[in-house]
Amino acid sequence: MGKGHGTDMKLSLKSPLDMHVHLRQDDMLRHVAPFTSAQFAGAVCMPNTLPPVDNMERFHEYVRQVKAAAAPHAFEPYVPLFFRDDFSREMLTEARDDLFALKLYPAGVTTNSEGGVAELTKIEPVLDIMQDLDLPLLVHGETNGYSPDREREFVAVYEHIATTFPKLRLIMEHITTKDSVAFLDKHENVFCTVTLHHLLYTLDDMLGGLFNPFLFCKPILKSAEDRDVIQALVLSGNKKVMFGSDSAPHTEVLKRTEGMAGCFTAPVLLPMLAQFFEDHEALELLQAFVSDNARRIYRLSPPERTVVLEREAWTVPPRYGSIVPVNAGETLRWKLA
Amino acid sequence: MGKGHGTDMKLSLKSPLDMHVHLRQDDMLRHVAPFTSAQFAGAVCMPNTLPPVDNMERFHEYVRQVKAAAAPHAFEPYVPLFFRDDFSREMLTEARDDLFALKLYPAGVTTNSEGGVAELTKIEPVLDIMQDLDLPLLVHGETNGYSPDREREFVAVYEHIATTFPKLRLIMEHITTKDSVAFLDKHENVFCTVTLHHLLYTLDDMLGGLFNPFLFCKPILKSAEDRDVIQALVLSGNKKVMFGSDSAPHTEVLKRTEGMAGCFTAPVLLPMLAQFFEDHEALELLQAFVSDNARRIYRLSPPERTVVLEREAWTVPPRYGSIVPVNAGETLRWKLA
Repeated sequence: MGKGHGTDMKLSLKSPLDMHVHLRQDDMLRHVAPFTSAQFAGAVCMPNTLPPVDNMERFHEYVRQVKAAAAPHAFEPYVPLFFRDDFSREMLTEARDDLFALKLYPAGVTTNSEGGVAELTKIEPVLDIMQDLDLPLLVHGETNGYSPDREREFVAVYEHIATTFPKLRLIMEHITTKDSVAFLDKHENVFCTVTLHHLLYTLDDMLGGLFNPFLFCKPILKSAEDRDVIQALVLSGNKKVMFGSDSAPHTEVLKRTEGMAGCFTAPVLLPMLAQFFEDHEALELLQAFVSDNARRIYRLSPPERTVVLEREAWTVPPRYGSIVPVNAGETLRWKLA
Repeated sequence: MGKGHGTDMKLSLKSPLDMHVHLRQDDMLRHVAPFTSAQFAGAVCMPNTLPPVDNMERFHEYVRQVKAAAAPHAFEPYVPLFFRDDFSREMLTEARDDLFALKLYPAGVTTNSEGGVAELTKIEPVLDIMQDLDLPLLVHGETNGYSPDREREFVAVYEHIATTFPKLRLIMEHITTKDSVAFLDKHENVFCTVTLHHLLYTLDDMLGGLFNPFLFCKPILKSAEDRDVIQALVLSGNKKVMFGSDSAPHTEVLKRTEGMAGCFTAPVLLPMLAQFFEDHEALELLQAFVSDNARRIYRLSPPERTVVLEREAWTVPPRYGSIVPVNAGETLRWKLA
């Protein structure tokens, strides 16, 4: 994969994929989509727009808008439909060939005091249909509990879904804790995505000194212990692990005045990932993490593209328009060729 | 203490004291000191100014400035000297009658891997002098570890100091965790202060949804479990527990753009405390918490004043000049008469 060594080193990636990104709508979509399409042959574009992409009419319209914003790069938007518990078997069956997956934001899903799962009964009929149709389920896995514990508490929900629907492909999105890592290999039908920021940073990077609003995200950053377990997972080459940035743009003003959650990492993703894998002498694992694992898990055929990185220093701009990126002002060792 | 019931209820407090407040300097001092002096007969005014109050010349000057800013209220500033490990026995002995206490910000103090205390050897000569002079030690008790664990990790340091200097009055400032509460009664010479915000809020109030910069403080807010233990301690009437607000003003701009830590609670303190104690049917405990315990522990004779609260709704302003207070825009049940 790497060609040459030293200062003239190049790194070629085949059809890299970002399996979790927020591209927004309208002007913001047109502003941020090119950062993703310049680096990735495809991306899972999250459906939590206003209104959400929760029917096929909006689905086709959003796919069209993303493709237009991603031009001229060959880029495939994989848009999971926003989960509704009243989706019918007829609708999902008819839409199956167009659909990539469904995305569940379990706002009301919590484990009950016995450690069981109460509210899941409402969503189980749709999960049953999805299993029959072999339609993957992507989940933001957090309870409504204490922020640092939300993901850990949600593992019981994952367990319940994975065992009740053993043929349903279940993707734990943006995992951040050792508990999620420990759960990953317990079930064949469970997979996960990992973000750049949860791979690199801890809660102390956000609030250990002064507060850094540009590292405020959900799930919140965790301890060094959790971060290290996430790193070890990614560096183990586990084939159930996919890269998904969860890059989520908000303007600097909204970050500072409204306290919006989300890290804008899109412009720095592949350079930072190359740097991370190089730091751990594992550059040979990057291709599987950013593409091959996702292609196999989801059976995808993204546009065939080769994205080349050069080992050359570049400094991340302080802002891209109204948006401050993660690592603003820092000098990275890799850049897009 | 309470007079009458129902809507015309009044609450009289004798010489309330805020045993931990940041009044800053210059314009900020003149702006914020009246909020404290209107409610309190005295306050422990923290010496972390620029430069710190770490010699007797600055001490006398700062006391003078605070008194001027606190006028016309009868108000006694108790200014602890900023701890330096090169303080001499001669200097401290000569200054003893003027001094209230020393305040230690243990920037480099951490427990080592064996759970012992390494760096404390540097400060022990001064602690020995303080014990001889019966000069209390106030401590910001956090290690340099992972933010949520910093206070818990510091308990070993408190333990070491309390046992090595059994006659030194040791005050754990702004305690926030069940571990500190569990430690409090283990040693006769250990006391503590509790803030309003750690008594009322959890980390989720700051970052569970959108981020609220006005609840960003050090030590960071903790879990509901920790908060509930702090509440139980205060409501137990434990005589080692003093109120210390840690009110720490920063302008709205600095909070939002620089991520400064500190909650500005000064204008709402007694109304909010009255509301909290009333909610727990414990108004009779408020006098000891906000005055009597501190008077006894420190042997203070603050100006004799009676501060009266009325049970009448008032709405906290959105900002006081450039500063946004905690509970901005909320309506409280008690107000200053």
